[in-house]
Amino acid sequence: MTRPIALVTRIDRKGEEDWLALLRERLPAETILPFDAMSDSQRAEAEIAIVANPDPDHVRQLPGLVWIHSLWAGVERLVAELGETAPPIVRLVDPELSRVMAEAVLAWTYYLHRDMPRYLAQQREAVWQQQDYRHPSTVRVGLLGLGELGRASAARLLDAGFQVAGWSRSPKEIEGVETVSGDTGLATLLGTSDIIVCLLPLTAQTRGLLNRATLEKAKPGASLINFGRGPIIVDDDLIALLDEGRLDHAVLDVFATEPLPAEAPFWRHPKVTVLPHISAPTMPETAASIVAGNIESYRATGQLPPVIDVRRGY
Amino acid sequence: MTRPIALVTRIDRKGEEDWLALLRERLPAETILPFDAMSDSQRAEAEIAIVANPDPDHVRQLPGLVWIHSLWAGVERLVAELGETAPPIVRLVDPELSRVMAEAVLAWTYYLHRDMPRYLAQQREAVWQQQDYRHPSTVRVGLLGLGELGRASAARLLDAGFQVAGWSRSPKEIEGVETVSGDTGLATLLGTSDIIVCLLPLTAQTRGLLNRATLEKAKPGASLINFGRGPIIVDDDLIALLDEGRLDHAVLDVFATEPLPAEAPFWRHPKVTVLPHISAPTMPETAASIVAGNIESYRATGQLPPVIDVRRGY
Repeated sequence: MTRPIALVTRIDRKGEEDWLALLRERLPAETILPFDAMSDSQRAEAEIAIVANPDPDHVRQLPGLVWIHSLWAGVERLVAELGETAPPIVRLVDPELSRVMAEAVLAWTYYLHRDMPRYLAQQREAVWQQQDYRHPSTVRVGLLGLGELGRASAARLLDAGFQVAGWSRSPKEIEGVETVSGDTGLATLLGTSDIIVCLLPLTAQTRGLLNRATLEKAKPGASLINFGRGPIIVDDDLIALLDEGRLDHAVLDVFATEPLPAEAPFWRHPKVTVLPHISAPTMPETAASIVAGNIESYRATGQLPPVIDVRRGY
Repeated sequence: MTRPIALVTRIDRKGEEDWLALLRERLPAETILPFDAMSDSQRAEAEIAIVANPDPDHVRQLPGLVWIHSLWAGVERLVAELGETAPPIVRLVDPELSRVMAEAVLAWTYYLHRDMPRYLAQQREAVWQQQDYRHPSTVRVGLLGLGELGRASAARLLDAGFQVAGWSRSPKEIEGVETVSGDTGLATLLGTSDIIVCLLPLTAQTRGLLNRATLEKAKPGASLINFGRGPIIVDDDLIALLDEGRLDHAVLDVFATEPLPAEAPFWRHPKVTVLPHISAPTMPETAASIVAGNIESYRATGQLPPVIDVRRGY
C-alpha cells in the first residue's frame, strides 16, 4: 500500500474537483486526496503533494512529504511562501505549454509587426491610412529568457522569418539566435530589438529588471510584450517611457496584482494592450498526464524528476 | 533598336516616378517612357505597356501593343475597362506577395483564434475575463480561393497546427487540405469552418458570392476575413448576420469603395475590424524585378509569360 498523495490548492472547488478527477483517472493505483478531505493520520502519511497555489500552512501540515509537484510552471510564489526548508519542488514542464506560449509570442508579435494597434486606433477615428510594411527579416525580436518557453518561441519566430535575439542571465547558445547574457548583454538586446518579449520567471534577480534605467536603453520606438511575470516591470517607469514616446506599445498579460484592479492606469492607456493572463493557460489534460508520468516514474525507480533550485527560483 | 515600353498609370506622380526609376534600373537596355511623356510616334511604336490602374483611353492610344504587364496581381478593373479586345494581359505573380498574404492570413487568423477582438473590448470596460483556449487542431480555417495566395496561406496555417479546408470553383487538390468545389462545396466549407478567409479574385462569378443566402450556411459563431475584393461580400447582408449573432466577427481589408467612406457603418461596427487594404501590399522592389524578368525573357525568346483568361477574369 503506497502512502497517500495530497492535492493542495487554493483554486475554487470546481477547479480542484476537475483536477482530482483527471489525476485519479491517470493514476488509478494511487490514493489522491484533497487536503480538506484528509484525516490527521492521512496528512501525517502523505508522501507527495500535488499543488496549485497552496496555502503554505497546509503544506506544513504534511510533515512526511518527500516531494512536491506543482501543477503550474511558475513556482516563484510557492518558493517564496514555503521557504528554503520545503521539500524538493518539481514544476510542470509541459511541451504543450511551450507550444501555446510560442504561439502566443508569434500571435502578438504579428499584432505589433502588422500594426494592429495602429489600425484599431485609426478605425476609431475612421482614418484610412496605410502604414509601411516591414519585411520580417528587417524586424528584430528580442527574447528575455531562453528556457523552454524562449527556445520554443525562437523557433516559431525564426520560422516566420524574423530576426531573433535572446538574453539570459547565464550564456546559452541557440542556432539562428544571437544570444547575449549578463548586464551588458541586456543593454545590447534592448538597444537592438524592435519587439522585446519578456518570458522570464520572477526571481530576486528579475524583479524590477525592466525599469527606467534599463528600458531607456531600448531602441527608440520599440515595443514590449510581457508574458513572464508582472513584477519584472516597474509599472510607472513603463508608463512614463510610453508617454514620452520612447516606447511605442506594450502588450501586458501579467501584472503585479491579478486580476488587474479596475483603477490601474494600464486599462485606459492608449499604448497598452491588457490581456488577462492568457498567453499560455495551463491545460489540465496534458498537465495531469505529465504529473502522472512523473509520479509513476518515481514509484518505479525511486528517483525524483528534476527539481527546482530554490535559491535560483526556477 | 527595340520598340519603346509605355508606363501607363493613374497613380500619383511621385509613385509613377518611383516605378519608372526601379524599372529603368532593372531594364537598362529598354526605353521606358511614361505615357504623358511620349510623342505620337513613340505611342504608335510602343510594343509593351506596363500598367497600374491605367486610363483605358491611354491604352487605346497605343495601337501597336503586343502585350500588357500589370504591376498588380488584381486585374479585374483592367479587364472590365479594356474589354475583351485588349492585347494579352500578364498579371503580377510575385512569390513575395504570396508570402506576405500568407503571413497576413496567419496573423489575422491568430487575431481571431486568440480572441484579440474580445480582449480589446474587455479592456475598454476594464473587464478581466479569460476566454477558453482552443487548441488549433480543433479550429478549422476555410479558405475561399486556392490559387497562389490560397496555397501559400494553407501551408502557413497547417504549419501552425490549424485544420485547413479550401474551396475553389473548379476542383483542386492540396496535401493536408480538405478541398471542395462548386456550389455544394461552398455550402460545406462555410458550414464547417470556424474562420472563413476570402482570397478570391473579383469576377462575374464571385461578385456578391458572400450574401445572406450563402453566409446563412456558415457555422454559427464563425468569423470572416476578407482579403480578396470588397464586392465579393454583400455589405448589408454581412452586417445583418453580425447583428443577429450568427457571425462573430469580420476582418475586412477590402471594400467596394476604397478608401472606405467615413460614413460607412463598418467603421463603427463593434464586430468589424477595418483595415485599409494592407494585407499584402505590392512591393515595388520585388515587383519591378519580376516584371523586368518577364520582359527580358520575352525579348530573348519572343514568348509571352502566362497571360490571363479575360473571360474568366484571372
